[in-house]
Amino acid sequence: MRTALLQSSGRPGSVVENLKVLDEAAGRAAAHGAGLLVTPELFLTGYAIGDGLARLAEPADGEAADAIAETAARHGLAVAYGYPERTSDAAVFNSVQLVAADGTRLANYRKTHLYGPFERAHFTPGERQVVQAELDGLTVGLMICYDVEFPENVRAHALAGTDLLLVPTAQPHPFEFVAESLVPVRAFENQLYVAYVNRVGLEGEFEFVGLSTLAGPDGVARVRAGRAEELLLADADPGFLAASREANPYLADRRPGLYGSLV
Amino acid sequence: MRTALLQSSGRPGSVVENLKVLDEAAGRAAAHGAGLLVTPELFLTGYAIGDGLARLAEPADGEAADAIAETAARHGLAVAYGYPERTSDAAVFNSVQLVAADGTRLANYRKTHLYGPFERAHFTPGERQVVQAELDGLTVGLMICYDVEFPENVRAHALAGTDLLLVPTAQPHPFEFVAESLVPVRAFENQLYVAYVNRVGLEGEFEFVGLSTLAGPDGVARVRAGRAEELLLADADPGFLAASREANPYLADRRPGLYGSLV
Repeated sequence: MRTALLQSSGRPGSVVENLKVLDEAAGRAAAHGAGLLVTPELFLTGYAIGDGLARLAEPADGEAADAIAETAARHGLAVAYGYPERTSDAAVFNSVQLVAADGTRLANYRKTHLYGPFERAHFTPGERQVVQAELDGLTVGLMICYDVEFPENVRAHALAGTDLLLVPTAQPHPFEFVAESLVPVRAFENQLYVAYVNRVGLEGEFEFVGLSTLAGPDGVARVRAGRAEELLLADADPGFLAASREANPYLADRRPGLYGSLV
Repeated sequence: MRTALLQSSGRPGSVVENLKVLDEAAGRAAAHGAGLLVTPELFLTGYAIGDGLARLAEPADGEAADAIAETAARHGLAVAYGYPERTSDAAVFNSVQLVAADGTRLANYRKTHLYGPFERAHFTPGERQVVQAELDGLTVGLMICYDVEFPENVRAHALAGTDLLLVPTAQPHPFEFVAESLVPVRAFENQLYVAYVNRVGLEGEFEFVGLSTLAGPDGVARVRAGRAEELLLADADPGFLAASREANPYLADRRPGLYGSLV
């Protein structure tokens, strides 16, 4: 499945403008044969917008979700987008939602590992580690930014059968090492594809570094962005994935009986 | 603590020759201020020596252990060496033993994650995941080759307080990615030092790739070998480690209550 990575910060604070950017990118991605478009973390609203996060948060079936479903259906590709999610009891989560090419809402994940005082001040942590959906014959998993830095989270996805892990992110300087080295290692050690899609540029106190990538189970980046806005395209190949898993049987060689201290 | 990494294959099949190589390297390492010398996996005997592994295996307190204790005491530095270990019930393990600078045997680890048909044919897997000892104010952990490719094993060491993880290895082509990328990521995600010490050159069906390294908690290789025999020196700095842990609180930010599927 061809996956499009929208490395962009849109316009922080403006949902209307970000829906336009998303729609335009979906058109370009579909024209290049993509079956899926992935945005950065909190793309719908912006990241460093303080109380704007709570003000602009909406339910998983809110107005913006409807607009994105319409975008997905019109261009005929699935969309995974980051947004602040408000629940009926007024909690706000840092979420990513996957919408199918027919506009159906397939899966919604709430970030379980919040990063630093900024996120802890604005969000409630999610309680479900593994959220997946089937898409074009692949099991797609959802995760957000800091989550991927914990090997436990990606391992849990591998054990649950995830083939392509989508990781909207907001990765600032000086943590380039995560995009450049840690993400490909996650793909290799778990034998799956990882799409890591970052914001760019200055936003509040953060300097986002781009470097978005789709890394394969061989640890090789199929594509690698610079630090500017960019729409990247790369393929997740089920045949290559199956052969790589055969050659690297990490899951079969695990010894879970020894891992008791991790839980 | 200054650590010396002996990237060498010695002379496969000759314990006598390998003890000489080790003694000579210990002298050079001590002269450069090292407090610890680490060899590759199965350095005492060679790796791809087939039934020679069982024939040359000896107990943890055997003759070679005594010779290495004498080497350590004479040069005044600790030694961690890989060897095939025979137990009283005739089992053979792929082990690493740490001997202190006064010749005391401090810790012995038996490889828990055996790699491929060759190792499974010649060794019994160990049953203890975390083996540690205190050395010059650092908690030193022991692991062997394939073990380090499982994030669960290094995480268990981090949770148990390991500061410097010693990983004798026998890493062949085409798995250079492990030495080059995975090992520094292990050091970063767990906030510890990893000393990864490889064999070199052709040996049976294996082409060992060298690339030994000591990686810091910032994911940066303090030293990086090429593919030839080499004695490398690098420092594990407790002050740097403490500051890095403060800035990267991965262990505190874990959510073990969510990780049940891993065990």
